[in-house]
Amino acid sequence: MSFKFANEVTVRFAETDAQGVAHHAAYLVWFEVTRIEYLRRFRGGYAGLREEGVDALTLEAHARYADAARFDDRLTIRARCGDVRGARFRFDYSVERDGSRVADGWTTHACVSVGDHKPTRVPAWLAEAIAEAES
Amino acid sequence: MSFKFANEVTVRFAETDAQGVAHHAAYLVWFEVTRIEYLRRFRGGYAGLREEGVDALTLEAHARYADAARFDDRLTIRARCGDVRGARFRFDYSVERDGSRVADGWTTHACVSVGDHKPTRVPAWLAEAIAEAES
Amino acid sequence: MSFKFANEVTVRFAETDAQGVAHHAAYLVWFEVTRIEYLRRFRGGYAGLREEGVDALTLEAHARYADAARFDDRLTIRARCGDVRGARFRFDYSVERDGSRVADGWTTHACVSVGDHKPTRVPAWLAEAIAEAES
Amino acid sequence: MSFKFANEVTVRFAETDAQGVAHHAAYLVWFEVTRIEYLRRFRGGYAGLREEGVDALTLEAHARYADAARFDDRLTIRARCGDVRGARFRFDYSVERDGSRVADGWTTHACVSVGDHKPTRVPAWLAEAIAEAES
Repeated sequence: MSFKFANEVTVRFAETDAQGVAHHAAYLVWFEVTRIEYLRRFRGGYAGLREEGVDALTLEAHARYADAARFDDRLTIRARCGDVRGARFRFDYSVERDGSRVADGWTTHACVSVGDHKPTRVPAWLAEAIAEAES
Repeated sequence: MSFKFANEVTVRFAETDAQGVAHHAAYLVWFEVTRIEYLRRFRGGYAGLREEGVDALTLEAHARYADAARFDDRLTIRARCGDVRGARFRFDYSVERDGSRVADGWTTHACVSVGDHKPTRVPAWLAEAIAEAES
Repeated sequence: MSFKFANEVTVRFAETDAQGVAHHAAYLVWFEVTRIEYLRRFRGGYAGLREEGVDALTLEAHARYADAARFDDRLTIRARCGDVRGARFRFDYSVERDGSRVADGWTTHACVSVGDHKPTRVPAWLAEAIAEAES
Repeated sequence: MSFKFANEVTVRFAETDAQGVAHHAAYLVWFEVTRIEYLRRFRGGYAGLREEGVDALTLEAHARYADAARFDDRLTIRARCGDVRGARFRFDYSVERDGSRVADGWTTHACVSVGDHKPTRVPAWLAEAIAEAES
């Protein structure tokens, strides 16, 4: 799988645990930070989406840990978005350090209305921007 | 300072860091968890307060670390509330393990209206309940 | 899938996010807290395992969110352990509130030596204790 | 108080809470991230300090919240280090957004030996580097 987008994250001390490595739940936060940066390139990004009355829920999250990440490691989080169907979309991630795989994962999401959280289609402008960015 | 209320917290693995001890920011979360339990005894507690249109902001937080807490340590968080004046109130905490001090701290808070976050007096029923509980 | 073990978790305010619900990464922490409680019934639990020179890494984590959990929600996290093969084992989880499903998930793990993190078999006493508990 | 060092932090969604603002404990993590960046300018930074057998404990942490920080806010965390005496030192912080104060705080620390956590003097090279940086 090829990735056209990447974000950099430095492992925070607060993200490490008593095994001396980054805690496995931190990866979901890095995935999220990376999604936000991914979307920032389109109109107002995630913040703009919310102002437009559209929020995005996380339906599923998956992470597979291949190697440990340690304090102060500089990680590259590659991301791609696809499977945009109706209200739903999916992100895939690859976490790398110096070109070698640390982890990978994916998340699925659904667009909902801000407030009542009722499903709503991915806005056309966003679906098009994603399709163009990934093509 | 004497404490009439106490809450128990077990150190989570996710709360430890690469020094092998509980990360110092976790104590603020334990203080908060303890405030919630403290307030739970009065009407609907903090959730009830919010339903009544009153929220509480944290204005200041202070923690002093005397000894390390480690994974799976069973900690007693003692708390007292006082200095209820207008919109403001203060909590003091003592974190202990097997009767010996691990940390102490305090937080100050202001009641505000839910939504616009404008200052509002501590509801009379709550000020009275606190005064009675601490007397 | 039937679960013979359950743990209770109350959603902390610090675990909520600006969508007004528990952040999706918090579920991995609750899964971990529940694993610790699950293992606590056997010898010295996870802490005892580490003292014995055996640590457990998380290889994969998966969570599927069916409904939102909110501040102060009292959640039941059901767990079962199985697939104990060599160094590896797997946990399955169900997160429920008032008997209705909020989320489910699973994690896979590998036993390693404390320090060098080399794979090591799940200790026989632990494999037997798990088999007995789940039978 | 004047600050010669500053670090940038963007508020993560995972750092917000159900009040729609950054949780107050997140500030201690931002202070830490900023200390790490502050120290990075000297030799190997904090990681280098640890490799040299010297670790730093947090003795006290204080934060005062003047205004709310929200999701995706770009914050400037100014920091200065001083009061280097024996094993101890102190950091002061100012959190700003668009030039206006969001919070301030301070932390005190003690150098200890890695492993046994016995107090040890701030290494001379670090004390000198700090004095020079702050002069």
